[in-house]
Amino acid sequence: MQRPSGRRPEELRSVKITRNYTRHAEGSVLVEFGETKVLCNASVEAEVPRFLRGQGSGWITAEYGMLPRSTGSRMAREAARGKQSGRTIEIQRLIGRSLRAAVDLTLLGEHQVTVDCDVIQADGGTRTASITGACVALVDALRHMQRERIITEDPLKNMVAAVSVGIYDGEPVLDLDYPEDSRADTDMNLVMAEDGGMIELQGTAEGAPFTEAEFAKMLALGKAGLEDLFALQKKVLAE
Amino acid sequence: MQRPSGRRPEELRSVKITRNYTRHAEGSVLVEFGETKVLCNASVEAEVPRFLRGQGSGWITAEYGMLPRSTGSRMAREAARGKQSGRTIEIQRLIGRSLRAAVDLTLLGEHQVTVDCDVIQADGGTRTASITGACVALVDALRHMQRERIITEDPLKNMVAAVSVGIYDGEPVLDLDYPEDSRADTDMNLVMAEDGGMIELQGTAEGAPFTEAEFAKMLALGKAGLEDLFALQKKVLAE
Amino acid sequence: MQRPSGRRPEELRSVKITRNYTRHAEGSVLVEFGETKVLCNASVEAEVPRFLRGQGSGWITAEYGMLPRSTGSRMAREAARGKQSGRTIEIQRLIGRSLRAAVDLTLLGEHQVTVDCDVIQADGGTRTASITGACVALVDALRHMQRERIITEDPLKNMVAAVSVGIYDGEPVLDLDYPEDSRADTDMNLVMAEDGGMIELQGTAEGAPFTEAEFAKMLALGKAGLEDLFALQKKVLAE
Amino acid sequence: MQRPSGRRPEELRSVKITRNYTRHAEGSVLVEFGETKVLCNASVEAEVPRFLRGQGSGWITAEYGMLPRSTGSRMAREAARGKQSGRTIEIQRLIGRSLRAAVDLTLLGEHQVTVDCDVIQADGGTRTASITGACVALVDALRHMQRERIITEDPLKNMVAAVSVGIYDGEPVLDLDYPEDSRADTDMNLVMAEDGGMIELQGTAEGAPFTEAEFAKMLALGKAGLEDLFALQKKVLAE
Amino acid sequence: MQRPSGRRPEELRSVKITRNYTRHAEGSVLVEFGETKVLCNASVEAEVPRFLRGQGSGWITAEYGMLPRSTGSRMAREAARGKQSGRTIEIQRLIGRSLRAAVDLTLLGEHQVTVDCDVIQADGGTRTASITGACVALVDALRHMQRERIITEDPLKNMVAAVSVGIYDGEPVLDLDYPEDSRADTDMNLVMAEDGGMIELQGTAEGAPFTEAEFAKMLALGKAGLEDLFALQKKVLAE
Amino acid sequence: MQRPSGRRPEELRSVKITRNYTRHAEGSVLVEFGETKVLCNASVEAEVPRFLRGQGSGWITAEYGMLPRSTGSRMAREAARGKQSGRTIEIQRLIGRSLRAAVDLTLLGEHQVTVDCDVIQADGGTRTASITGACVALVDALRHMQRERIITEDPLKNMVAAVSVGIYDGEPVLDLDYPEDSRADTDMNLVMAEDGGMIELQGTAEGAPFTEAEFAKMLALGKAGLEDLFALQKKVLAE
Repeated sequence: MQRPSGRRPEELRSVKITRNYTRHAEGSVLVEFGETKVLCNASVEAEVPRFLRGQGSGWITAEYGMLPRSTGSRMAREAARGKQSGRTIEIQRLIGRSLRAAVDLTLLGEHQVTVDCDVIQADGGTRTASITGACVALVDALRHMQRERIITEDPLKNMVAAVSVGIYDGEPVLDLDYPEDSRADTDMNLVMAEDGGMIELQGTAEGAPFTEAEFAKMLALGKAGLEDLFALQKKVLAE
Repeated sequence: MQRPSGRRPEELRSVKITRNYTRHAEGSVLVEFGETKVLCNASVEAEVPRFLRGQGSGWITAEYGMLPRSTGSRMAREAARGKQSGRTIEIQRLIGRSLRAAVDLTLLGEHQVTVDCDVIQADGGTRTASITGACVALVDALRHMQRERIITEDPLKNMVAAVSVGIYDGEPVLDLDYPEDSRADTDMNLVMAEDGGMIELQGTAEGAPFTEAEFAKMLALGKAGLEDLFALQKKVLAE
Repeated sequence: MQRPSGRRPEELRSVKITRNYTRHAEGSVLVEFGETKVLCNASVEAEVPRFLRGQGSGWITAEYGMLPRSTGSRMAREAARGKQSGRTIEIQRLIGRSLRAAVDLTLLGEHQVTVDCDVIQADGGTRTASITGACVALVDALRHMQRERIITEDPLKNMVAAVSVGIYDGEPVLDLDYPEDSRADTDMNLVMAEDGGMIELQGTAEGAPFTEAEFAKMLALGKAGLEDLFALQKKVLAE
Repeated sequence: MQRPSGRRPEELRSVKITRNYTRHAEGSVLVEFGETKVLCNASVEAEVPRFLRGQGSGWITAEYGMLPRSTGSRMAREAARGKQSGRTIEIQRLIGRSLRAAVDLTLLGEHQVTVDCDVIQADGGTRTASITGACVALVDALRHMQRERIITEDPLKNMVAAVSVGIYDGEPVLDLDYPEDSRADTDMNLVMAEDGGMIELQGTAEGAPFTEAEFAKMLALGKAGLEDLFALQKKVLAE
Repeated sequence: MQRPSGRRPEELRSVKITRNYTRHAEGSVLVEFGETKVLCNASVEAEVPRFLRGQGSGWITAEYGMLPRSTGSRMAREAARGKQSGRTIEIQRLIGRSLRAAVDLTLLGEHQVTVDCDVIQADGGTRTASITGACVALVDALRHMQRERIITEDPLKNMVAAVSVGIYDGEPVLDLDYPEDSRADTDMNLVMAEDGGMIELQGTAEGAPFTEAEFAKMLALGKAGLEDLFALQKKVLAE
Repeated sequence: MQRPSGRRPEELRSVKITRNYTRHAEGSVLVEFGETKVLCNASVEAEVPRFLRGQGSGWITAEYGMLPRSTGSRMAREAARGKQSGRTIEIQRLIGRSLRAAVDLTLLGEHQVTVDCDVIQADGGTRTASITGACVALVDALRHMQRERIITEDPLKNMVAAVSVGIYDGEPVLDLDYPEDSRADTDMNLVMAEDGGMIELQGTAEGAPFTEAEFAKMLALGKAGLEDLFALQKKVLAE
């Protein structure tokens, strides 16, 4: 088996995380997994959704979008169609759930952090890149809140990152790009906490079902890849 | 640990599948997992989505809805709100993907089977009950197509069923009902093919992340439960 | 003239009303007029529409929907289309008005009862079946409110029921089923109170206009049929 | 009993029908029932709804709207809210059904006539005024079609007109204006053909149910009023 | 060059402004520029948009619509399509901005005046006719507010009017009608205050770009035409 | 008068145009006017809007959006609200009109070029920056079409650029940034062709009306600024 990119099965694409990418957001990160580029902006607002009002607790949520020409052929603009696609909704719910697992919401006070993940350029793996970058943007927003004395304690429990794994041409591979993703039999997204806890695991057989053995290999591959991502997040946040 | 229902950890609720529940649909099944009741109607139509036209292949899709008072307090009717919720969209996409894994779409000709899963009464596990019941309704629709000479070969590759497992009060349990689901730390939905292949696996840490060991236990519990469900589907379809 | 079902012109279909059909709603009724089956769930909520707030009076409203495959060929799901059809809106407004005529709203306090009428299987006459079943579900909800001391006095003024009559093949007939309805010249829906008061009367010439004489015959037929329906409601509510 | 306007119970408001009110429509009528003013524009288009295509038959439909300040206090503009109200939909369906009863659709060829009824000023009875005026606009459009040789035979079967009757202060009255309508116990809209055939009859008890005797009186009052309206339509169309 | 209407280049169409055209609105004006007829109704409401609440200042806004058959061929009804067109939105924003320039909003108290401009018949120049008529309706509404002691001081700073100019067949012309507008190379809308101040100026090259010299000529033509419009507004308001 | 940025009245911000910013679009430009950054992606598609089909001519259109946190405080995502704002619609119509003036549409064949202008970071003047950058992206797309032999002749007639001018603190200034824009009395957007032709000119008095003398000064300022922008476009396109 030869990956289209020439990478080894367990090899991540070149991953880059740039903080303070735009100037207005409390946390602003450009995350790049090879040619996939997502802008993650974290915004702090002093109000929570209705179901949380008056309870002293905060909330973290995410929204996701693709620029119409982030992809090979132009997609209709969701704002013009008047509707987010099912795929968009599925992805932004996943990002939000993943980020909430990183934070002790009771230490946020009645604040909401919204992380907007907008895909500037797509080449597979936009949802896992989004989670990985969004967590860094979130940390910057939490630091901002502490610096501005909006909160007194650090609510971060655990860094969170995500990566995709799949069965390509019969073999488990890490971090699929678009040419692999569009031909993979199975696609799995793995979201973990830095301490090794599993947060979300979604495996989908696109073509043939997968076996438990394949599943175990994909899981091992994903865990190894996530260690590199956690190291990169830490390094970038220390700068 | 004591389950609210008094069930043992590895015990399914009483599951019942009633075929020919309504008269118009080509396949019509009422599936009950304890107090959860879902009506699954499979409809055959002689046209496929635009992206498949002229290719000679068919399509299977699903839609999901909850009656406004299927739940403890009344939910707003999605048709009146003018919008399906993110949860609804996520679920119906999952059901559709799962069912497509059961069938050789190239043997369907240019036909679409739509399975409507409408929750009459909810008590946890509506998405896994939907998949389990929808597959039986789908088989009835495929048999109808063969009887009516719409297709000549049986396109069914494999029965598909689904079940939920979770960590409740620290312990893995099978087939969560609503009182368990609303307090579980982790919730996992497992969709498998009858031959043991895994089709979809979604694990979500609602509170604390889960460990690989917990994950393995949940998987084992789910696989055991699915064997009973496959046996029930087979028995019901033989009647 | 021979009715497709073999019924005599003044003969109702077999009508069945099942109380406590689902478990969550304060009133839950399955009403069957032959093969037409509608689930009517009444929900009590402690708030009223904006225009009534602070006036001490309550409100009763209804929503109506058809499961996509309740009919001979599948209809698009209104929640997915993002819009209720004109027919749906017309019907749910009729049900709501009819039920409000049954109740002294000033005795409800600031509560709203919403009755959801969802058609499980359609064979003509779904709106009149809905009204007839919804009134029983409403009574169960009002009894619940008294039992729970939400209200102290019984707000029911009068049972309400409805039936259709039409001119089929030149002759007035009672309680049209779908084969009759789709070929009838005139269709009339009659909503009455148990004491003989008329609540709503809607006659529509689908093809040729109707004469006053035909109208008088339809009215007489409808009134006779409604007596049987009031008797059935009373019997069922006494159980 | 004294009517707010000083009219006798059986007295219509001053009714005026002005043809050729605007210049673009094939039929354009301003109809006035006292202070109620509705502009009815009939447009001929060379296509029919999908369900009629290729059958050689035509269609007649109607749309209804109120200018935001046609009423005592400003109503939200439906185009800005993005949705027609239930009341609007109910009314335009009624107008369309009524007009279709006036015409032999098979003589229209594959053409559709759409009659737009826009309320310039409202003072009760806008739906019955709309039907009465729309029928004149429709006749002008049909004459245009014959003049332009779009059709060869006159498809008009019968003039159609409508009027409201109600129980006001215990007594049946004809053609309610807004002060009466807002306090009436019962409101009935009567749509008839010129030859005495009944096309649509909608009676609604707003407060107390009505008796058969009251109903009969309202019907007689309505029929007498309609004779005057048919005479006016005929006179105006002869000019 | 010969204008289709035979007018001289600097000649307005016959302009007519009728006050008190309908009875409910606080200001109601029918404005006619030749065959273009727009009904402008100004409504006073005792609340302001959210962003102004509690600041003691008022607001003026406008909405615009065309009756479906105000034009040569029928346009879809925006309320039925569920969406205002881009053109509609652009026009109503222009009308609102223009009217706000006429008034000292701080003297309005927390009131909003909404001017609805509904096109009864279109023949080019509906947006400039709307502004010219809406300003008169606005003055009537402001006078009403003073008469009813809702406000004590006159908030009107300046009358506002508008006119179109364009390059037709190579020559600048004033007040284009539809046959001119649809063939003009350049179209400019000029909104001015009575004291000569410029409020809004929108020039658009539909075909070839325009030169500064042409622009200057159009501006001069427009200013001359506006003087006549201001004189007419004044005369009409003095009646 | 002192501009917040310290710039001279006739001084542009530092303007930067980066071609080939993303990899999928036929033309992809990042345009920066100081801190305002807009990504302009031009997409070529082999179909035209319905009103142009079969006429052999092409079309150019634009869509505009702001990332939710491109601004100082987060704006609601238009895709999630299900609706583009009036401001968005106004801007994208302006961009589209401006670009169409640059091109001979009859030389495009039946192709559409859509230019998506997405604001990554906003600091005033996003619409004029969008036009200036979009024209460069458009040229790249046209070159692509010639290279790929989709068209044979160069359809570009003229480069198009845009700049804003305004009255700030009583004095005309060029290229307003956000702090200026939010306090300016008058705001004018000037779109010109490289040969000096005027394409679109929109002047708006936000507070006090402006005089003809002020208008003339703004126009001169804008024209001078546009010369620099045309020079930059040319230089960048020559690389």
